Amino acid sequence: MTSHTLRAPTRLLFGPGPSPVHPRVYEAMREPIVGHLDPFFFEVNQEIARLLRTCYGTANEFTMVISGTGSAGMEAAVANFVEPGAKTAIFANGYFSDRLAEMAGRHGAEVVRFEKPWGEVYSDEEAREFILRERPAVVAFVQAETSTGAYQRPHAIGATAREVGAISIMDCVTSLGGMPVDVDAAGIDVAYSGTQKALGCPPGLAPITVSPRGVEWLRQRKTKPVSWYLDLKLLLDYYESAHRYHHTAPISMFYALREALAVIEEEGLEARWDRHKRNHELFVAGLAEIGVEMLVAPAHRLWTLNTPKVPEGVNDLEVRKTLMARHSIEIAGGFGPLAGKVFRIGTMGYGSTEENVRLLLAALKEALGR
Amino acid sequence: MTSHTLRAPTRLLFGPGPSPVHPRVYEAMREPIVGHLDPFFFEVNQEIARLLRTCYGTANEFTMVISGTGSAGMEAAVANFVEPGAKTAIFANGYFSDRLAEMAGRHGAEVVRFEKPWGEVYSDEEAREFILRERPAVVAFVQAETSTGAYQRPHAIGATAREVGAISIMDCVTSLGGMPVDVDAAGIDVAYSGTQKALGCPPGLAPITVSPRGVEWLRQRKTKPVSWYLDLKLLLDYYESAHRYHHTAPISMFYALREALAVIEEEGLEARWDRHKRNHELFVAGLAEIGVEMLVAPAHRLWTLNTPKVPEGVNDLEVRKTLMARHSIEIAGGFGPLAGKVFRIGTMGYGSTEENVRLLLAALKEALGR
Repeated sequence: MTSHTLRAPTRLLFGPGPSPVHPRVYEAMREPIVGHLDPFFFEVNQEIARLLRTCYGTANEFTMVISGTGSAGMEAAVANFVEPGAKTAIFANGYFSDRLAEMAGRHGAEVVRFEKPWGEVYSDEEAREFILRERPAVVAFVQAETSTGAYQRPHAIGATAREVGAISIMDCVTSLGGMPVDVDAAGIDVAYSGTQKALGCPPGLAPITVSPRGVEWLRQRKTKPVSWYLDLKLLLDYYESAHRYHHTAPISMFYALREALAVIEEEGLEARWDRHKRNHELFVAGLAEIGVEMLVAPAHRLWTLNTPKVPEGVNDLEVRKTLMARHSIEIAGGFGPLAGKVFRIGTMGYGSTEENVRLLLAALKEALGR
Repeated sequence: MTSHTLRAPTRLLFGPGPSPVHPRVYEAMREPIVGHLDPFFFEVNQEIARLLRTCYGTANEFTMVISGTGSAGMEAAVANFVEPGAKTAIFANGYFSDRLAEMAGRHGAEVVRFEKPWGEVYSDEEAREFILRERPAVVAFVQAETSTGAYQRPHAIGATAREVGAISIMDCVTSLGGMPVDVDAAGIDVAYSGTQKALGCPPGLAPITVSPRGVEWLRQRKTKPVSWYLDLKLLLDYYESAHRYHHTAPISMFYALREALAVIEEEGLEARWDRHKRNHELFVAGLAEIGVEMLVAPAHRLWTLNTPKVPEGVNDLEVRKTLMARHSIEIAGGFGPLAGKVFRIGTMGYGSTEENVRLLLAALKEALGR
């Protein structure tokens, strides 16, 4: 019998996400729910769309939220824009770009990959040359690779994709709200994210934005996507003027996201980016002081997620266990080719503070015996 | 600038869902989140699985939660069990069975339909005869049809499906937690639901259960489902012993569902069913007193969702507007062939109380001018 009320332990969430949640977001989640066709719900949804456009750096009218986690956002992008047989070019330099390739394959794409070691990124010239050579129908890449901590510049990819008439898909799960995303400046057609990283909200929704060019492509598409749940044309009919019933939107999560975005607007997006950059740099400097090196070259590091190398002779799992046991601090290890080689440590959203960075550095110094 | 904290209006949710949420569930949602690989998360998940088994009437080891709404549960069932070319028999008597057919079609099924007018159900003999004649690979039906208020007995369908070697899929979105679901007694292989109906939780998750026979079928399946996000084999690897990362589960919604299920356990499932039945009958009796008839025959009515006919000469939209304007009461109208012909009025979950039924009856009486 489970007669007690649920009480969760307090963790200090410095992993690759979920990140700490702003108290106002928790408060918003216990506001009373309304129906999924209630005018208040659509007001909240409009407000979310407006606030998301700022974070994405876009004027895209089509800016909405998928009722699933960031992975559902990825699948929505692939399911709607990758038709069976479509040549899909993947910049493959980490776990999440591998997953893009896996999803595209399941949707019947002809996948072509540009491989790089995990932790590296593509120069503008490399990106341009790959796309011009392959002339794909779809180009997909990860702006902020959560498995490696590397930032991929989107501008050459977006511009060259348009040059060859391809739709570009960008994963912004770990950048949105913590770093410039530049959807319009880079000419990206489809960008998606999750709520549990630099937005400072629990996981559960996937914000997505589509360029007018992408919307036009979608309207011309002859085949139906295999996924009904993630069919963006049906979602447009629901969220936009017709408000035609599609699914019962997870209203409490919409409240949470609205609140997280309002908190961002109050802070100011550029001030928030600066805060992320400053605390990331403070953390890296502190790591250098205790002799810990970074995986990613300085120019390509995310401000949201840090990937220090596991020092020689150190067992990364033991360090993580120690941090959790002594301080309730969650950080993550690497996986795939980076298993045992890096830590993945988030300084993002509500969690990106100078105080947290100092706490993390002290705890790491102790756990590493430095 | 959106500087204020979100405040939602209080609605009396007597539509077809979402239904009113128990206060303990709101409290649980503001508990601090933990990571998606935290042992505490898997404990919560195990507890949810145990409590769900009781509600489903099953001993299925494979009982878990999809990170999307009830519609994602439907898509998970179809994506995993309907292979391209599979003959899929649909009991087509409402909106949600139409949607099952639509999803199966998108997954490449050969769909065969047994049509009945919306509001009617299938006798054991009819069900048996259809399945024996078609000998399909998959049989799908809706136990509690939210568009019509009709209850479909699952026993003959489940038994006959096994007789011909078919996988049976049952939609329990509007029955789970408010009426007997009988997964094991009826021999059903796959059943899914949503959280926002008789479970008394906000929308956002889709509980699903699969029989050992269904799991074995899944393990033998040679092709990958097109959907990666809803791939049950990958989800098994995440939720079960390996805890291999799949997606970042919406932890706050898991807290909410755990709490809603704990509330059900405290009330006692049979007591809860009785409460739903009693309040449904009280409502129907009260409707009869003001001369309002029901769409569905007495033996086939849901206890969770009532579909009174719109009386001659009454504009259903005006009635709904009046209820919202005067009392903040949300009820719904019919759609498809039932547009303008029925109201859809939920008495479910935390909302199924004698007090609410009396309030609803008084408000309806006034709005109908009876």
